Order: sequence, then structure tokens, then C-alpha cells
Amino acid sequence: VRAARSFTLGELARALGAELAGDPSRVVRGVAPLEEAGPDDVSFLTNARYRSLAEKTRAAAVVAPADTTGLSTGVLRVASASTALVSLLELFFPTPPVVPGCHPTAVVAGEARVDSTAAVGPFAVVEGGAVVGARSRIGALAFIGAETVLGEDVVIHPRAVVGTHIVIGHRVIIHPGAVIGTDGFGFVFDGQAHRKIPQVGTVRIEDDVEIGANTAVARATMGETVIRRGTKIDNLVQVAHNCHVGEHVILAGQTGIAGSCRIGDFAMLGGQVGVTDHTTIAPGTLLWAQSGVGGDIPTGGPWGGTPARPAAETRRIWAASARLPELLRRMRALERRVAELESRRAG
Amino acid sequence: VRAARSFTLGELARALGAELAGDPSRVVRGVAPLEEAGPDDVSFLTNARYRSLAEKTRAAAVVAPADTTGLSTGVLRVASASTALVSLLELFFPTPPVVPGCHPTAVVAGEARVDSTAAVGPFAVVEGGAVVGARSRIGALAFIGAETVLGEDVVIHPRAVVGTHIVIGHRVIIHPGAVIGTDGFGFVFDGQAHRKIPQVGTVRIEDDVEIGANTAVARATMGETVIRRGTKIDNLVQVAHNCHVGEHVILAGQTGIAGSCRIGDFAMLGGQVGVTDHTTIAPGTLLWAQSGVGGDIPTGGPWGGTPARPAAETRRIWAASARLPELLRRMRALERRVAELESRRAG
Amino acid sequence: VRAARSFTLGELARALGAELAGDPSRVVRGVAPLEEAGPDDVSFLTNARYRSLAEKTRAAAVVAPADTTGLSTGVLRVASASTALVSLLELFFPTPPVVPGCHPTAVVAGEARVDSTAAVGPFAVVEGGAVVGARSRIGALAFIGAETVLGEDVVIHPRAVVGTHIVIGHRVIIHPGAVIGTDGFGFVFDGQAHRKIPQVGTVRIEDDVEIGANTAVARATMGETVIRRGTKIDNLVQVAHNCHVGEHVILAGQTGIAGSCRIGDFAMLGGQVGVTDHTTIAPGTLLWAQSGVGGDIPTGGPWGGTPARPAAETRRIWAASARLPELLRRMRALERRVAELESRRAG
Repeated sequence: VRAARSFTLGELARALGAELAGDPSRVVRGVAPLEEAGPDDVSFLTNARYRSLAEKTRAAAVVAPADTTGLSTGVLRVASASTALVSLLELFFPTPPVVPGCHPTAVVAGEARVDSTAAVGPFAVVEGGAVVGARSRIGALAFIGAETVLGEDVVIHPRAVVGTHIVIGHRVIIHPGAVIGTDGFGFVFDGQAHRKIPQVGTVRIEDDVEIGANTAVARATMGETVIRRGTKIDNLVQVAHNCHVGEHVILAGQTGIAGSCRIGDFAMLGGQVGVTDHTTIAPGTLLWAQSGVGGDIPTGGPWGGTPARPAAETRRIWAASARLPELLRRMRALERRVAELESRRAG
Repeated sequence: VRAARSFTLGELARALGAELAGDPSRVVRGVAPLEEAGPDDVSFLTNARYRSLAEKTRAAAVVAPADTTGLSTGVLRVASASTALVSLLELFFPTPPVVPGCHPTAVVAGEARVDSTAAVGPFAVVEGGAVVGARSRIGALAFIGAETVLGEDVVIHPRAVVGTHIVIGHRVIIHPGAVIGTDGFGFVFDGQAHRKIPQVGTVRIEDDVEIGANTAVARATMGETVIRRGTKIDNLVQVAHNCHVGEHVILAGQTGIAGSCRIGDFAMLGGQVGVTDHTTIAPGTLLWAQSGVGGDIPTGGPWGGTPARPAAETRRIWAASARLPELLRRMRALERRVAELESRRAG
Repeated sequence: VRAARSFTLGELARALGAELAGDPSRVVRGVAPLEEAGPDDVSFLTNARYRSLAEKTRAAAVVAPADTTGLSTGVLRVASASTALVSLLELFFPTPPVVPGCHPTAVVAGEARVDSTAAVGPFAVVEGGAVVGARSRIGALAFIGAETVLGEDVVIHPRAVVGTHIVIGHRVIIHPGAVIGTDGFGFVFDGQAHRKIPQVGTVRIEDDVEIGANTAVARATMGETVIRRGTKIDNLVQVAHNCHVGEHVILAGQTGIAGSCRIGDFAMLGGQVGVTDHTTIAPGTLLWAQSGVGGDIPTGGPWGGTPARPAAETRRIWAASARLPELLRRMRALERRVAELESRRAG
């Protein structure tokens, strides 16, 4: 993917608030990792581990921490190279402006209110009573259900589904295939069959949330499933009915949260984590990938394993498990030795 | 989400077959859990654990088991509060009637037969030879393949895909993004490459089955993949080719069943369970979330863990595992003590 | 599903390069497994375990290994019954030819180049700059993003999404609901919130790759996510940004590969496997279902468990784990016996 424009190092220094060591008139046309960058690229040193690559890079300049010295390339010194990298990519690859208007093939109900600065793509469906805020984009083949409200600067990617009566905040991004507001999975067994509990609640997604491809967020049975501001959810994740996911939470790919869980702010759940229903996870908890959480996690910090335990404990158990076959052998040897001692004593 | 209408407690008592303690003319306008209900709501006590909440609720009345006494609110006494809750929600939130007809943007093949009481949404595609039964709804952007037959009162939610030559019973619900009848994952390695085995079988889904968002049910290689009546499948589940899932089975979110498995009637599989191919699971088996089933489960009841074992056994192993580091220490101590005894004896 | 045509056994023998024992004029009309085949069917013996079924089958003939004798049916002797089965199914169920042309409802940008022999289905969207090669099929409701290039004989099933700037080789098959080129899941925490790293890379998929229903393949942050030729990916799989998946790899259902992994050629990952980011897996590695890979796998062969270890080791640990409760009891008994010996010695 080609960058939208080129910059001089001087322009970049100003835009990033960086201190430039190097030729401010030198032109760069792209961004690339240290080992792949060419003389037309600017690169970045976001991890001290890669210092040696920075010494060998062909890049015109490197965005690097403020205390970086000794590089033969230009250096753009910044307080945080990681956040500067975000800005750098935004400069070279700006989001194209919204081209307002509804594609002629879109089906937008008369009673829907689509802001005049918003865009609706081909074959998108916006049902009655839905509201689409300023500068929001509804991708091709997407579905926005009746009475659903989208904030401003929302991006609904092609083929996402947002059901009826959902509330979506500002700057929310929903990727292709995600389904927001599918029915919660709730049944009552009446002795003969599972009877469906009507799922009459809704979903509320706050500002700055991102939801990955083919992820499913179920509506509440009654009340609401909530995803609070700043939370980022990866692909193929399941968030079940009546969950409350806190602020700035990370849910990595294929993680599943069963019904009525509470996930504390700033928690980070690795990939393929499972959390049983009605579980509370403390703010700031870090769950290893594939953890299985079967009960509340009362304090933050790293946890892991199935059943999930504080990570240090799980690490000890896993290490000891590897020695289990040896332990069995040692046990047998010891039993023989004790029997020998006992028989001599008896003898 | 607002209720469709209001009821008097007398009307509710009649509709639910409940014995009312309280004012039959009192009007209620919604349903809410005990702690959230206001004076215009009816609430429910479906779990004795929440008895104390029922004593404090602001609800006008509580649907509760027949032997419930001592509440200051109205009480609607019923044989089963859980099944009454289903009826209660159905009363307040009735499914809107189908508005028959095909949306003008839908592409329905001339040779398809869509019942005159059925509805087909915008941008839905119904291919040739497909049959859509009475009062069935095909959501926006859904795809119904050639020769596929849907029964009566079926709900295909927006953007679901039902492939070609599939048979779907009555009252089946398929949620957004679900794919029924994708190719089975079958290949023959010819020494150089994996050659695709044409997947020429089909899928048969019986009455009253519900299939969650973004779930995939593969067609059989030959013959049919079968989901029997009353079974409920959650979101992001994988059912592979040639599986036979029994009656009234529950498959929770993100569970995966590999090819040619047999899942017995009334089995309940927790979230993220994995079942290896050609496995038979006994009727009534209950599998804990994240279980990994590597062989047949011959008897019902609770099983758990990876590899899956009877739950009591897995519980003991997990408890003992937590003591493994301690066990290693005790082993070392014991070895020292035995060596000491041996050396004294030798000495 | 009915076969497209019938064959005589003589015709089949010629088409398969088989040696026929039986009546070359006998007509067969379908293919079925041994126990289900009727007198109009040809069946197959691809696994010696099923020899006894072959002796009882009602099939007109059986495709079987070259050294097969003693069957009462006709026998079509071949070098490999498995690969002959693929050919057999292709004969009876040939892929229908592409009917070239764009459905009148498809939205194909003026600047897209769709080969005159390709087909584009109803409500498909092909954006500007996209290229669709000869004899490729774009299913109904599918989305092909701007500047994306598809090779020849590609099959994009209904409702798949291929994002912008993607490169897809020849004979690639992408199943319904799959999303190729969604954003990588990359954020920088700036002390207050997770800032999105613009995902400006792409995805390259080589020839003969197959990608399952509702699978997600993320685009690279910079550079490209690569899936090399001949690789087969099942349903609901996650391949994260910047992964390089080798040639002829198998990824079974619900497996997840985190960012920047390298999966070696001919590796086979079972269902629900998780691989942590920046991991290298050796060519030819076989990972058991549900394995959790937390570090590089330096040599091929079977691995399993969480954390993943060589399979033999994991098998020993699992066997020993089952004896853990017993081990605890034996430890307590032994401690008592040693204490007894010690007290006698002291006494």
C-alpha cells in the first residue's frame, strides 16, 4: 500500500514534535521497519532490543527515544517512539475524508435520520428510526437495525450487522462480519424442551471502542450489555448477554465471555480465553492466552491456566507437571527403599 | 426496549395461569429483574438465592414459585417461575407478525417457491428451486442457495447464509452471519499437495433448532450432517461435516465439533469445548467449558478438562495439581530423610 | 445431492486408470460409503479397517487398493484409493462451468477490470482498481475492495469479504463469511488510552489456498501477511497481522495464530490450537487439537498440550496427572512410615 504523500524530515520533526538530528530538507516517501526500510523511508526504534538493526538500517531517518545517539542515519528524537509511530503512520496514510451521501442502491428507511455528512455504501440497509451521526460511514452490505443510534465519526465496515435498538458512541469502529446485538443464548428447560427466553434487552457501546471481524456481541436478556469507552476487541470474540466490559479493556482473538460477567477497566485478556458466566474480573487483570476462568478474579495482575490461577502459581504448577513422570519414578524408588529399611528392622 | 403493551395483574394471572395475591386492577408496563424493577414493572423470583432481593424490590408484583409467602409486593404464584418468565416476556414483547411479501430489491429466482405468507428482506437472494415455507422470514442480505427447503415459521436473520440443497425444519432460527452448508474440511494428501475432496453431501436441520451468530455448520462429504430437533447452538460454534447432533442438545459459544461425531440427546457442551473427530458422546453428557474430548464418552453426567475425564476425577486432579510444587518439596525432604536412615543403618 | 450423470464401470476404470474386476457395462449412478451404498452406487475402500464392510456392501463396485481380492462386488483396483475417491467424486459431481457476466444488481466500479469469462453474483460489490481473473466467480453479496487482485479460477463464495489492496492467487477458494484483510489488532497505550496503530500493510494469498467460513485473516501493520500456496484453512480460524503461513499447511477449525508468527511448510495444526505472537513453528510440525504454543517449536513431529510439548512428553504428563491424587496418598503414607522408622531409631 503506497503512502498518500511525501514529507521532508523537517516537516516530520515539526508534525511529531521531534528533535531532528539530520538534514531537514531530505525527502521521505514511506514508513518501514528497520530491516526493510530503503533510503526513501523513515523507520522507527520502538523497542531497545532492535538497536542493532537501527545501526544497520538503510532508512533516511529513524524515529527513536529522546536519549538515542550514535546512529548514522537521521534521528527524530521523541518522548515516546511508539506513540510517535502512530502519528507517523497517520501522516503518511491519512484516513480519506468521508464522501457524504447514500449510494443509490442503499435501502434507507424514510424514518431513518442519516446525517448529511455521513456516507452509506452500496446495498447497505438502514431501518426505520435508526440515526447515523455526522461523518459516520456505513460500509457496503452492512445492516443497521431499527431504532439503532450511531454517534459521530463511526466506521461500520462492509457487511457488519448492528441489530435493532442498539446505542453506539462516537468514533466506534466495527469490522466486517461483526454482529452486534444478536440474541443472548438463554433457554428454560421445561422438562421436555428448551424454551427460548425472549431477549428483549439491548447493547450499548461507548466511544472509541473497536470491534473485530466476525465478533459477536449479544444483546441483554433484559437491560443492556455494555462495552465501555476505549475498549478494543479482536476478531472472532464472543461477548455474551448482559456482560459489562469496562473501559480500555483488551479482548484478544477468539476469547469468549459468558453471560453477565463484569470485566474491570484496563483488563487485558489474551487470545482464546474463556470466562464462565457471572464472573467478576478485577481492573487491570492480565489473563494469559487460553486461560479458563471459572471464578472471580479479585485482584489485578497476571493470571493464567485452566483453571486460572495467579500466573506465578500456574508457572510453578506447569514446571512441576513436567517433572511428574520423574516424580512417579522417584516415589516408587523411595517406597522400595523404605520397605527395605522396614524389613531389616523387622528382620 | 419498550414493551408492546401494558397489563393488569389480573390479566397476567389469567394469561400465566397464576394465583394472584394482590390488586388485580393494578397496571404494569414492563418486566425487570428484582433490583432494577420500578413500581410499574412486574418482576420474577426464579432462583431462591435472590429471595432477599424480592423482599426489597420496588416492583408491583413478583412472579414466584407456588409456595412463596411473606412478600410485601403482589405475588403471581406459578408452578415454575422460569417457564412463567418466558411467557411473561412473550406477553410484553410479542414477536411482530410477518409482513408478507418480497422486498422489491430482493433477488428471488423464478423457479423458487416462496409462500405467499412469507417475507423476504432487502438484498436477500433466493436461488432457483429453493422453497420458503409459510410465515417464514428471510432477513436482509441473507442468501438461500439453490434447492434448499425451509419449513414454516423459520426466521433467517439478516446476512445469514444457507447453502444449496439444505433442508431446514419448522420454527428454526438462524442468526446473523451463520453459515449453514459450507464445504466440509476434507483433503487427501497425494504426496505433493492436499487435494480437495468434493463435498457433495448436505445438511439437515430439524424443527425448533436455533443457530447462533457467525456459527458454521459444514455439509457432509457424502450423506448428511444432521442437527436434530430442539437443539440450540450458540455463536461462533463449528459443527464439522457428517456430525449428527442429537435432540435438545446445547452447544455453547465457540465450541467445536470435528467431523463425523455423534452427540447424544440432551447433551450440554459448555463454551470453547473441543471434540475430536469420530467421537461419540453419550446422551445427557454435561461437558464443562473448555473441555477437550479425545475419545468416546460412554456415559452421561458431568465431564471436564483436557483430556476430558469424569468431572469428579478432573476436580481431584486439578486440586492435586495445585499441590504439585509442595509435593516436589516433600519428595526431596523425604529422600533426604530416607538417605539419612540408610546411612545410619550402614554406619 | 444427486450426481450429474451416470457411468459404466468400464468408463470409470478408464477415467480412474483402474483395473476393473467385474462387468464393464454395469451402470452406476452415484457414490456412497460402503454401508450406505445401493446396487446403483460405486463405493470405496480407503481404509483397511473397513474391509469387513466391503465384504457386505450392496454397491455395484468398490474402488480399492491394487492388492484387493476376495470381494463379491466389482472391484476398481487403483494405486491409491483415497486419491481415486477424489477423482470419482469429481466425475460424478463436476463443478458447473462458470456462467460469465455480472449480475445486473452487482455494483462493479468502472475502474475495476473483471475478465470477460468471470462471473459476479447479485449484490456483489467490486470496488475501483480491483482485478478479477479469468473464470473466477464472485458470489452473491461478496465484497472485493479497491485495488485487490484476484487470479484465475478463484471462487469467492457468497458474502465473503476481501478488503482493499489484497493479492489473491489462482484457484483460491474463499468460503462464506470469511474476511480477508481486516485490520491487524495493534494499539499503543499512551498512558490514558489505547491508540490505534494504522494498519497500512496488506495480505497475499498464493495459489490453491482454501479459506473456511467466517475465518479472519488480518492485514499486516506494515508489509504483508502471507499465506503460501496449497495451504488449507478451516472455519472460524484467526490468522493475525504479519503472519507467514507456509506451503501446504493445514489449520483446523477455530485455531488462532497471533501476530508475526512463522508457520513452516506442511505443518498441521489441529482444531482450537492457539499460537502466541512472534512464534516460529518448524516445517512438518503436527499440533494436537487445543494445544497452546507459547514458544518456538524447533523441530517437526507431533506436539501437544498447554503449554505445548513434544507429544510423547505430554502423553506421559497426562497419564501421570491422572495418578496425582493417588501420588498424594502414597506420599502421606510414606511420610508416616519414614516417621515411624525415625522414631524407632530415636527410641
